[in-house]
Amino acid sequence: MIARDELEIHIESVLDRFLPDAARPPQTLHRAMRYAVLGGGKRYRPRLVYATGRLFGLPDTLLDHPAAAVELIHAYSLIHDDLPAMDDDDERRGKPSCHRAFNEATAILAGDALQTLAFEVMSSIPDGSCPPESVLKAVHTLAEATGTAGLAGGQMLDLEAVSRPLDLEALTDLHLRKTGALIRASILIPVLLAPDRVRAPVEPLQRLARDLGLAFQIRDDILDATADAKTLGRNPGGDERQHRATFVTLLGLEEARLRLARCLAQCRDALSAFGPEAAPLRSLVEDRAG
Amino acid sequence: MIARDELEIHIESVLDRFLPDAARPPQTLHRAMRYAVLGGGKRYRPRLVYATGRLFGLPDTLLDHPAAAVELIHAYSLIHDDLPAMDDDDERRGKPSCHRAFNEATAILAGDALQTLAFEVMSSIPDGSCPPESVLKAVHTLAEATGTAGLAGGQMLDLEAVSRPLDLEALTDLHLRKTGALIRASILIPVLLAPDRVRAPVEPLQRLARDLGLAFQIRDDILDATADAKTLGRNPGGDERQHRATFVTLLGLEEARLRLARCLAQCRDALSAFGPEAAPLRSLVEDRAG
Repeated sequence: MIARDELEIHIESVLDRFLPDAARPPQTLHRAMRYAVLGGGKRYRPRLVYATGRLFGLPDTLLDHPAAAVELIHAYSLIHDDLPAMDDDDERRGKPSCHRAFNEATAILAGDALQTLAFEVMSSIPDGSCPPESVLKAVHTLAEATGTAGLAGGQMLDLEAVSRPLDLEALTDLHLRKTGALIRASILIPVLLAPDRVRAPVEPLQRLARDLGLAFQIRDDILDATADAKTLGRNPGGDERQHRATFVTLLGLEEARLRLARCLAQCRDALSAFGPEAAPLRSLVEDRAG
Repeated sequence: MIARDELEIHIESVLDRFLPDAARPPQTLHRAMRYAVLGGGKRYRPRLVYATGRLFGLPDTLLDHPAAAVELIHAYSLIHDDLPAMDDDDERRGKPSCHRAFNEATAILAGDALQTLAFEVMSSIPDGSCPPESVLKAVHTLAEATGTAGLAGGQMLDLEAVSRPLDLEALTDLHLRKTGALIRASILIPVLLAPDRVRAPVEPLQRLARDLGLAFQIRDDILDATADAKTLGRNPGGDERQHRATFVTLLGLEEARLRLARCLAQCRDALSAFGPEAAPLRSLVEDRAG
């Protein structure tokens, strides 16, 4: 687990700054958005943005935008995934899910508005900190990762999987979209934003972007099968109860662990092209081994 | 009513081209998105984009992107507004609403993915047809119009209004967000995309953008109180049944008609700065008088 650190405090303050003021109308909507985003989560995706962007010497004033954007997209997707019509989860990060704390209509709108806010934040990267055509490419990459080729498509495949058994190939496709796409974008967007600075090889980062997304999900599946509720922030064993295919149910625990180890080895290998400046990225990879 | 014409056929083909192929997985999600967008609606917002953009000589290859984007945002908002947790409408444009034709989870995701697609389409305006910093400003304007200061905020105020009586000022604020913001963006985005071509005065267009949004809603309220189901594409009198404040319930039918006439007069006045090249915009204004 990532310890509470300076970066976490920074990310929290950046999100707080970009989120609409709870005192401005419609207050309930703004409160629901803030409830779902602030004060929880490991901030894995924004951490990837900073770790990758700092590798190229990009300033935080620039990185704050994509870092917040990927977390806002993540938060929106969690709110909608938890809805009664979707996964019907009453808890999230150890507290009532958004539609339980507010109501369904408010939760739907809060998710909607968080998605919009992500694109608002991305398109307001300060003039001059980066070429506008690079920002546009980054906006496009975020949209691709969020849409039916990514997050939304992955959630749809996941819903369909409840009534239809998945094989390993289909499960991998599902998670490369549902979890992988946004993890991948969190690494690729800073690369896009640094067109003049990328002296470091880009290809290993592209490999890392893909492998880390898969490692992320395999580890989540292992945790769901083995951890207790406190570690998980929700009830464990939910996958098995819902008869949902996971890397553990399809491969067994041992083989899933082997796959995770292989994924992580590929991530480490991709980072071997870099020196000590890649330490924050390495520690985000090792976090998945923990 | 706007007759079926060449532009309608063009808009339909542009939307068809930007929407994901129904044969690609996840097929059900792609089918739901296409169901909600294609084959219906007056396409008022994309018509505004073309009418304004052509005034500055912008090519259709460029305008196709914002025209599709505003319609995709509109379609996303209708799907989510119709959900059981929101307005709970079974019909839309004379056919079953998206969650009735598919199911709730699919409808939520289809709306989500249509919003994303709008930003994907906006950020993929072809290189060289327009300065990238102008495209970024246009993306930002679309996001502002869609978020809590616009569409999503307006829908939240609308939901809250069911249990809380609104006065005229609050109702106007609600509709400047819920309907007005996207109408406004449909005029302002082409202006932003034409920084080198805007020889025509911009200020009247900004006034038009605001007044037309309000005219749009006042006329909808009048129609809801007076038209039959066939003209409306849904059951009329819904506002009154839901004890929802409208310009008609607050002002009475006569005064609402006077306000609409005043709004439209301001729109005509704003367009008096232009010559015959503004005929398409004028006819979109007159459509609201019909």
